[in-house]
Amino acid sequence: MHTLTIDLGKRSYPINIGTDLIGKASSYTPYITGKVMVVTNDTLAPLYLSKVLAALPTDTASVVLPDGEAHKHLETLDAIYAALLENRFDRGCTLIALGGGVIGDMTGFAAASYQRGVNFLQVPTTLLAQVDSSVGGKTGVNHALGKNMIGAFHQPVAVVADMDTLSSLSDRELKAGLAEVIKYGFILDAEFFAWLEDNIAALLARDKDATAYAVQRSCEIKAETVAADEYERGVRALLNLGHTFGHAIEAAMGYGNWLHGEAISAGMVMALDLSTRLELINDNERGRGVSLLAAAGLPVQPPSSITADTFLDYMQRDKKVTDGQMRLILLERIGQAFVKNDVSTEQLMNTLTADYRPS
Amino acid sequence: MHTLTIDLGKRSYPINIGTDLIGKASSYTPYITGKVMVVTNDTLAPLYLSKVLAALPTDTASVVLPDGEAHKHLETLDAIYAALLENRFDRGCTLIALGGGVIGDMTGFAAASYQRGVNFLQVPTTLLAQVDSSVGGKTGVNHALGKNMIGAFHQPVAVVADMDTLSSLSDRELKAGLAEVIKYGFILDAEFFAWLEDNIAALLARDKDATAYAVQRSCEIKAETVAADEYERGVRALLNLGHTFGHAIEAAMGYGNWLHGEAISAGMVMALDLSTRLELINDNERGRGVSLLAAAGLPVQPPSSITADTFLDYMQRDKKVTDGQMRLILLERIGQAFVKNDVSTEQLMNTLTADYRPS
Repeated sequence: MHTLTIDLGKRSYPINIGTDLIGKASSYTPYITGKVMVVTNDTLAPLYLSKVLAALPTDTASVVLPDGEAHKHLETLDAIYAALLENRFDRGCTLIALGGGVIGDMTGFAAASYQRGVNFLQVPTTLLAQVDSSVGGKTGVNHALGKNMIGAFHQPVAVVADMDTLSSLSDRELKAGLAEVIKYGFILDAEFFAWLEDNIAALLARDKDATAYAVQRSCEIKAETVAADEYERGVRALLNLGHTFGHAIEAAMGYGNWLHGEAISAGMVMALDLSTRLELINDNERGRGVSLLAAAGLPVQPPSSITADTFLDYMQRDKKVTDGQMRLILLERIGQAFVKNDVSTEQLMNTLTADYRPS
Repeated sequence: MHTLTIDLGKRSYPINIGTDLIGKASSYTPYITGKVMVVTNDTLAPLYLSKVLAALPTDTASVVLPDGEAHKHLETLDAIYAALLENRFDRGCTLIALGGGVIGDMTGFAAASYQRGVNFLQVPTTLLAQVDSSVGGKTGVNHALGKNMIGAFHQPVAVVADMDTLSSLSDRELKAGLAEVIKYGFILDAEFFAWLEDNIAALLARDKDATAYAVQRSCEIKAETVAADEYERGVRALLNLGHTFGHAIEAAMGYGNWLHGEAISAGMVMALDLSTRLELINDNERGRGVSLLAAAGLPVQPPSSITADTFLDYMQRDKKVTDGQMRLILLERIGQAFVKNDVSTEQLMNTLTADYRPS
């Protein structure tokens, strides 16, 4: 097991990364206080819940929510609060999120708001949740009028990232998680990018040591970035590489049709294209980037059904546009992203109308 | 205007206390950022909303909620979020709570959770909200299974306590607010208690200078107490003088039948009784306490319909009871409360069965 400590002063917490962790009492005992409730969904409960409960105090409660982003809203939160109140949980209690991003976000916000804040331990069961939700403290739910519009910053007391839980991921979900892992290489770490080039086959074959290292390095990079910019004003924006393009793809295709990681992969290819056109990176670097994403089995071109005008429309909703200039995350080399504030619509249109078919 | 600064480091904020404040742009301009939305209720909107809006930027939005504690729940919050999203408010916006405790608690929690936290300015329009909600940062809503069970600590950017808004309070609500004011004298400030004895008639006559001073001193005492004990483990408990008895009265009589301040007044009389029986204070001090509450027009005896057993039952739900010993806030003299951890059921029963009728 490797322990990575997220340094937040009094609120510092460990991310314990390894195998055979979720069934061990020692994964939880040092961190839990008071009564404990595990929150999970009806897909994961049959797979992992009894194993997790066996490692926790005998009076541990659990609540099983319906699976899926469609249930990430206030009414589902209300069910968590009801379970806590029916079981007379006081403010000394601990909630454990056993699941992917949706369960983590909802359980985290329930923990942030139940009796004005209780302890929260995360057991992320997807690669995406392990490398993304483990760091940053973002919790919340969707509103009918917008995604992730209701929430809080609430740090966990610990994260248990058990590679064994990834065995239940579909190949498609695994690949979508790898898109975020590759993103960390692009934005801040050329050495990690090169490691990913060498190890992408092992990651796709679910090699646990390779996966554990990828999770560790991703969390380290995210932690460094978040620590340097707690309030999301500067370097933290780099974490959004490919996201402005990707959000447009997700929205235009209808949420859930493209997985987030798939859309981000195509979005990063578009960022590489624009970075090349602006002579920030060369064709060789662009080629390495596209090749790694393709080797990970990820989309390397946007859906042909989305026109440039549709892209532009969604992108302008996502970002503030001032005088026709857009703020985008681009690369100056592999391992070094930056915020470019003055991308003109003309420059952008070249990338939106480009032919991404493999030559 | 008197400005009291609540010292919370980076999150310090002013409480501006005076008259003729809510209609002045200078009450808001230094504190608001981005788009502004005023949240109020359908009782207060006809009285104050247009005056407040006239002092704010012309594009200020407003949302008018149904009046009353019965609406302090998640569904009403959802209406605030919807109004914010429909008006495309971003995370740089400011919410203004124009109302009493219910509006302040709900608006504060909406501000704490909208896009993971936006600015929040309070304009409390009841004496209770001015002396209680202005300090401490508690926000939240009720759940069907428990009061104030969902919430967050979220500090306002400023509080505007305008004595003019108290003109819309009924005498009954004014008196209920005075119960909390008197509580501050009891627990920490004998000099303020003596001032209240001298000025209770002026306060009941709604003298604005006297009321402004009472609000200021109450907020100062609450601020000192909260600052000394941010996490509610010690001295902050003193703010609950009379509350364990009072909560039992509110619950046993059915919420809303006794106002909170009325129940707290009777509860403080019971705390005085128990403090006398334990020879912590003498009959003279007890007499001064009861006389001031009576002079404020507040109840000085619990409802005769509540039996001692009913009291005990509700009080045991409110507090953890260990080995038959209860934790209660008592007085060692007027102006000095303390936490007594070992009140026996026998001692308590004497107070629960006492005859409170004036002799």
